[in-house]
Amino acid sequence: MNDLDGFFKPRSVAVIGASREPQKIGHVVLKNFVDNFHGPVYAVNPNADRILGLKAYMNVLSIPHEVDLAVVAVKAELVPQVLRECGDKHARNAIIISGGFAEVGRKDLEEEVAKLARAYSIRVIGPNCLGVFDASSQVDTLFLPRYRLQRPREGGISFVSQSGAVGSAVLDWAASEGFGVSKFISYGNAIDVNETELLDYLHRDQKTRVICVYLEGVKNGRKFMETARKVTRTKPIIVIKGGRTEAGGEAVRSHTGALAGSDAVYDAAFRQSGCLRANDVTEMFDFARVLSEQPLPRGNRVQVITNGGGFGVLATDALAENGLGLARMRGDSTLRLKKQLPEHAVVGNPLDLVGDADSERYALALETAIADPNVDAILCIVLFQTTNVQSEIVDVISEFNDRRAKPIVACSAGGSYSKLHTTNLEKLGIPVYDSPHRAAKALWALNRYAQLKGRL
Amino acid sequence: MNDLDGFFKPRSVAVIGASREPQKIGHVVLKNFVDNFHGPVYAVNPNADRILGLKAYMNVLSIPHEVDLAVVAVKAELVPQVLRECGDKHARNAIIISGGFAEVGRKDLEEEVAKLARAYSIRVIGPNCLGVFDASSQVDTLFLPRYRLQRPREGGISFVSQSGAVGSAVLDWAASEGFGVSKFISYGNAIDVNETELLDYLHRDQKTRVICVYLEGVKNGRKFMETARKVTRTKPIIVIKGGRTEAGGEAVRSHTGALAGSDAVYDAAFRQSGCLRANDVTEMFDFARVLSEQPLPRGNRVQVITNGGGFGVLATDALAENGLGLARMRGDSTLRLKKQLPEHAVVGNPLDLVGDADSERYALALETAIADPNVDAILCIVLFQTTNVQSEIVDVISEFNDRRAKPIVACSAGGSYSKLHTTNLEKLGIPVYDSPHRAAKALWALNRYAQLKGRL
Repeated sequence: MNDLDGFFKPRSVAVIGASREPQKIGHVVLKNFVDNFHGPVYAVNPNADRILGLKAYMNVLSIPHEVDLAVVAVKAELVPQVLRECGDKHARNAIIISGGFAEVGRKDLEEEVAKLARAYSIRVIGPNCLGVFDASSQVDTLFLPRYRLQRPREGGISFVSQSGAVGSAVLDWAASEGFGVSKFISYGNAIDVNETELLDYLHRDQKTRVICVYLEGVKNGRKFMETARKVTRTKPIIVIKGGRTEAGGEAVRSHTGALAGSDAVYDAAFRQSGCLRANDVTEMFDFARVLSEQPLPRGNRVQVITNGGGFGVLATDALAENGLGLARMRGDSTLRLKKQLPEHAVVGNPLDLVGDADSERYALALETAIADPNVDAILCIVLFQTTNVQSEIVDVISEFNDRRAKPIVACSAGGSYSKLHTTNLEKLGIPVYDSPHRAAKALWALNRYAQLKGRL
Repeated sequence: MNDLDGFFKPRSVAVIGASREPQKIGHVVLKNFVDNFHGPVYAVNPNADRILGLKAYMNVLSIPHEVDLAVVAVKAELVPQVLRECGDKHARNAIIISGGFAEVGRKDLEEEVAKLARAYSIRVIGPNCLGVFDASSQVDTLFLPRYRLQRPREGGISFVSQSGAVGSAVLDWAASEGFGVSKFISYGNAIDVNETELLDYLHRDQKTRVICVYLEGVKNGRKFMETARKVTRTKPIIVIKGGRTEAGGEAVRSHTGALAGSDAVYDAAFRQSGCLRANDVTEMFDFARVLSEQPLPRGNRVQVITNGGGFGVLATDALAENGLGLARMRGDSTLRLKKQLPEHAVVGNPLDLVGDADSERYALALETAIADPNVDAILCIVLFQTTNVQSEIVDVISEFNDRRAKPIVACSAGGSYSKLHTTNLEKLGIPVYDSPHRAAKALWALNRYAQLKGRL
């Protein structure tokens, strides 16, 4: 019934409104497909012969092959005609990037397009949107050039955004931080496909492990919450709701025209349906990374491992402030650590391997913490400024992480030398946070989802 | 009476325990001075002839020139003898990097060193510390090589840290983010110079505009608070107190051995003495950047300017959640904006210049907001993913910032293209935050300090 696969894995794509001018939307989008998409790509532009090495067709009907997905980047007034032609061509799906509809008062034009889509049974994302980015198939209708908006590597986080600007900035940031993304959808005015249907689709999508949503309002709140309740039984949903405050609600009205609604009502609904709320786009990804990569903990007892005492103290504070417990390792574990670690190490929680710690000490600490039944999760702080921490520490942490016995998150702060290693850790599936606070909050989210899942 | 200048602007420096081996502390420290310090530098090592091109002296007494600052990096047991020689040489100041004193149970050795320092009237920072980094004089006793720990550019933020690890990680991070620092001091076991005296010194230091402090405990709380109360009349102090929670307090005891004390008592004391508290090292710098660069606002009414509606919504929420007000521009301002901006721009607060905004629109918006008496501060969101935002936007914002009429903070999220521009904005004195939440919290801190200053 609900099959949006045609938007994410189309057999063929036509870019309608393809352009020769590098600054134009129709150029950037065509170039994305030409450079990265594996299936056939067709350019439609009645005023050109060739664009980016492709023959340019008069209209979609003149393409002598099947067109599965139409990406529409023409003036709003031309969209109805384009849609009729797509219908006649039996295209199943259209992403209408073009703006100039309800958001500028042309509700009439928007309704005409919606009617046509229904009449021709074309599923539509948009209009007035960025559309879709799929890291696997490389469907990429983001009309911002890659030198300005980097595309993220493939991973388990999918992101549905009511705001194109929030979506593009966050995607660009995620790419530069090395975070992995599966699918991104900016759905704009949502004349057909909306946030709820996308939730349902991502629920069934095997590549998606965590769903992030930026919302300003929901058209059918009950349906959204019902779907969310179903989804969160198997996959976490992290929501940012724009317009939490009265002032924010006013801003929402003049932005997407949505009714922000009472935040208390939303909050209760999100809680009941098992959604995690994030305050901020960075926090949303902080939660998403740990939830997409790490196993769920069985309890809330965290063991802190560190090579810097001060960071250990800050982590302890942050864990306590987030309602997490400090693990107390068993007698045999502490005995073993005391025997094998140098005298100036501090065996406890935090377990302070001190400033001259090397990879061997980290290996011993991780192994002991993973084996100890009193430990539910590990917060591993590595300060790469110290001379004995060599690059192989990345392999050490990754090896223990690959056992997937207990959740591990890392914390590391610093400049380029440090970032080189933390990016590698991220790529190997270990979420890294630049402050103990962020790391503790992420562990809170992981723990909270484990609780929610147990309850639902 | 209190003159610590000799630590930060010494006429000459001797590195005692200089080493030829690149991994050794005594090598890294000597190299820092040889490469960057402008005054005479002497190496002391009885077992070498030359180190890094310098003649190596048998001891400090055999140097045939004045020694102003001695940097001591020898084994703990040798420190008393070295200090005696420094005394005979009439060195005024010593930074004792060496560990192996009270922190490993050698209270006796620590007291012997303290006594000698008093007897010879040598001022001492340390032992068991990273010592000093001064971005202007390039005194740099941080024994971690620059490829691992980048040094920040010169700026108005000074940072006093009880923890060497917190200090070094934060300094490295600040450097890579392009934040400007004046002085950094890791004071270790503090047998002589302590946090309070450093506050007092930085208060009088013209290059320091904001003082950051990482503390786990204070030896003389009353004196610290009295000094803080005096300092905050003219310079903001931002404090992170490790050991806020009971668990954190325990961690403090096994780290620096300090008594973390009741957090409620600390909290009240910080409030009464006008210190701002930060939760986290990133938050500390978020506050410090805006306080060191921007003028204080006259009220709490913030105007949001944006080229992305969703970020405008999130900023509005974040401002409201931090108790800040949304500015309502005067009729003539909105009239002017409506006349000169395209129809699809949203004139209000947020002022949404929309996705095709260029530098001209930003210039108009900034000029209007600065001229409008109903606006106290500006939160300027720039998403660099959009095609019309050209690099000159940096000049535009900087030009208005240079008028120093009202505080301006910027918000921008993204990857390398975005970061290129935000680093430039930072260098020009405009603090940039990667989320609306961080930007709003920074404006909260600016506003809070303005209130505190008015009250004190």
